[in-house]
Amino acid sequence: MIYLDNAATTKPNERAMARAQNFITERYFNPSAKYREGYALQSELKSARSSLLSAVADPTAFECVFTSCGTESNNQAIFSLARRGNAITTAGEHSAVSACFAELKQRGVECRVAPLQRDGRVDVEKLLSLVDEKTSFVSVMHVNNEMGAINDINGIAKRIKAKNPRVIFHSDGVQAYGKIPFKLAKEVDLYSVSAHKLGGLKGVGALIKRKSLVLPAYIYGGGQERGLRSGTENVFGIMSFAYAAEEKFATLKQDYERIKGYREAFWSALNPQHFDRISSQEGSPYILTLSAKGLRGEIVLHMAEDKGLLIGTGSACSSNAKTRYNKVVLAMGYSEQVADGAIRISFSTDTTAEEVEAAAAILSDVVNELRTRMNIKES
Amino acid sequence: MIYLDNAATTKPNERAMARAQNFITERYFNPSAKYREGYALQSELKSARSSLLSAVADPTAFECVFTSCGTESNNQAIFSLARRGNAITTAGEHSAVSACFAELKQRGVECRVAPLQRDGRVDVEKLLSLVDEKTSFVSVMHVNNEMGAINDINGIAKRIKAKNPRVIFHSDGVQAYGKIPFKLAKEVDLYSVSAHKLGGLKGVGALIKRKSLVLPAYIYGGGQERGLRSGTENVFGIMSFAYAAEEKFATLKQDYERIKGYREAFWSALNPQHFDRISSQEGSPYILTLSAKGLRGEIVLHMAEDKGLLIGTGSACSSNAKTRYNKVVLAMGYSEQVADGAIRISFSTDTTAEEVEAAAAILSDVVNELRTRMNIKES
Repeated sequence: MIYLDNAATTKPNERAMARAQNFITERYFNPSAKYREGYALQSELKSARSSLLSAVADPTAFECVFTSCGTESNNQAIFSLARRGNAITTAGEHSAVSACFAELKQRGVECRVAPLQRDGRVDVEKLLSLVDEKTSFVSVMHVNNEMGAINDINGIAKRIKAKNPRVIFHSDGVQAYGKIPFKLAKEVDLYSVSAHKLGGLKGVGALIKRKSLVLPAYIYGGGQERGLRSGTENVFGIMSFAYAAEEKFATLKQDYERIKGYREAFWSALNPQHFDRISSQEGSPYILTLSAKGLRGEIVLHMAEDKGLLIGTGSACSSNAKTRYNKVVLAMGYSEQVADGAIRISFSTDTTAEEVEAAAAILSDVVNELRTRMNIKES
Repeated sequence: MIYLDNAATTKPNERAMARAQNFITERYFNPSAKYREGYALQSELKSARSSLLSAVADPTAFECVFTSCGTESNNQAIFSLARRGNAITTAGEHSAVSACFAELKQRGVECRVAPLQRDGRVDVEKLLSLVDEKTSFVSVMHVNNEMGAINDINGIAKRIKAKNPRVIFHSDGVQAYGKIPFKLAKEVDLYSVSAHKLGGLKGVGALIKRKSLVLPAYIYGGGQERGLRSGTENVFGIMSFAYAAEEKFATLKQDYERIKGYREAFWSALNPQHFDRISSQEGSPYILTLSAKGLRGEIVLHMAEDKGLLIGTGSACSSNAKTRYNKVVLAMGYSEQVADGAIRISFSTDTTAEEVEAAAAILSDVVNELRTRMNIKES
C-alpha cells in the first residue's frame, strides 16, 4: 500500500516513538508531582517546548503552549481573543478555523471573509480592505491544507498592523510547521501547530504565542502550561512530537527540494489531457491537488485504493449535497465540475521516488479505466 | 521504588499499550479518511466508545464523547451549560472544576459552594438548600481526589431534580471510574472520566452525557465526535484507554476488596499516635490521606522519596502562602496544622501486598526520624 494522504495524517515516526517510549514505561509520573521525578519531567517538557519553539520563532519574543491538537489551538486563539468588533478570516481556511468563525457569528461578532486568488492564496488587497478600526482579530492560514498554497503571513500581518496596530493576528500553521522554511515575524501574535502532520501522534498540538500577548485560558483547572492550558500534560505525546519535529527541522530544506521534485515528477507522469492541475508550483511541495476531468474524485479515490494507493479528495467527508464540492477549489474560482473531480496527493518525508512513480502509474491506470468505462472521449 | 501516588497518575498498562500499538505502527490513518482504513478506524473507535460507556451507564440512555482529558470534559460541561442564573458546586472539587467556577463567577454567573462534612463528602442538606428556581447547573464530584470520599451522586442528582427538574447535573468521575462499583442514574446528565488514572495515557478523557441532553460543542472544527468535539481523534490514546478500562472493569469488585485490605493493612502498620487518619473507611479504598502529626507533609514526602517511596501530599503544588494548606482538609473542618501534615497514599491495581508492607515501614521510619530530629514528644 502506498500512502499519499499525508496531509490528513502522517505515519508516526518510529525513531521518535522509540525514543519517547520510556515516558510510558518508566517515567510515567505526573509532571506536577512534588518529587524529583515530577520535576525531571517538567524539565523534559521545557526542553521539548524550547526545541519546538525555536525552530520557527525567536524564543525571547515567543512562547509555546501545549494543547491537545491544532484544532484546540485555533479554538483557543479565536474564542479567547476575537470577542469584539469584527473578525476576519479567509475563504480557504480549514474547518478548525472556519467553524469557529461560524460560531463567533452566532455569538454576535461580525465576521468577514476574504476571498482567494486563483492560486489558492488569499487576495491580500481584498483582505486588507476588510480591516478597519473595529477589527479585533484576523486569522489567515499559513499553508492551505487542500491546495498547499502558501500565504505570506509575515507580510500580511505587517500590513494589517500598519493599518490597525490593535488587531491580533493568528495563523493556522498546521500544514506549514516542519515542512516549509520560515521564521515568525513579531507581527504574528499566534500560530497553531499539530504533531500528527509531521510524524508525531494524534492528540497533541501547540499554540505558539507572542510573549507579551495576554492570552486567556480556554481550558481551566490545575494551572498547567502557566495557567494557559490546564490538564495533566500529555508527556508521551509532547516528547514524541518534539523528537519527530527535531528530525523534520534538521533536514527541512533538503526535504523541501526532494519533495518538490517528487511533486513535479508525479505531475509529469500523468496525461495532462486527463487532469487539471489545481495546486500551483509555488505552493508547498507536500500537497498536489488535481482534478480528474469529467470524473468524481471520490470514485477515483476508491479505485486507487483497490489498486494499492491511498489518496484524499481534499474535501471534508460529507453526504450533504451543499458541501459535496471541495469548497476551497470553488473559492479559487473553479467550476463545480472541477471541484467534483478534485483529488489530493500529499507526500511526507518518508515518501520515496519509487512510491511516487508507482503511485502516478496507478492513478493514470485508474483514470484511463474510468474514462473508458464512462466513454469519455479524448480531447 | 514503590509508587503509591496513583491518584496523581497511574503507570500505563503494558498489555493495553501493546494491544493498541498497531494504531501507531500500522493503522495510523485519519479516521475521517474516505478509504476503508478510515472507516475501519471509525468502527474501532465505536467499539471503544461502547465498551467505555456500557461499563458505567445504560448505552441506550447515555453516550460518550472523547475529549483530551478529564479537565477538558469538566470545562466543556461547565462552560457549555452553566450559563444562566446560579451554578452550584462543592468545597471539595478538583481544580478542574473549581477553577471553572471561579471563571464562571468572573463571567457574571452566580456561583454557590456547598460545604463538606467531616468525612469529606458534601453536606447534602446544605447543598440542596442552595438549589432554587434559578439554579441552572450543579457539579458534585464522585470520588474526592484528595480524600477518596464518595458522594452518592445518583441520590444527590435525584433529590436536586425533584427540587428543580431543569437543573443540569454534572459529576467529575475521574477518581471513581474503573475503581468503584456504580451505574449512572438517569438523573446524572454529564460525567467526566480520564484515561491516565486507570492505566491509560495522559491526554485522553471522555465526557459521558445523557443522550437527550443538548450539549454545545466546546472545540469547533471538522465535526468529529458528532460535532461535539472536533479535532482528529487520538486513536492510540482512545484505544489504549478502552483496553486498560476493560481490564479494570473485569476485576473491579475483587480489586476493590483487595485494595481495601491494603489500605487497612497500611493504616494498621502505622503508629496511630503519629498520624491522624483523614480518609474515612467508607471512602474509595484507592486513597488514604493521613496527617503526620506535628510535621509538614512535604518534608515527609521528600524523605520518603529518598528511601524509595513515592507518595503525594494531596495538595496542589504552590508556593503561594494562601494555598499552602490542603484546602479539602480545611474544608472538612480540620485545623491548619493537620492540613499542613497531610500526605496522600494512593494505590492502584498494580500495587502488591509486599509493596504496601514495605511502604508503611518506610513511612513509619521517616516519621520516627523526623519526630526525633524535631524533638516531638510521644504523647
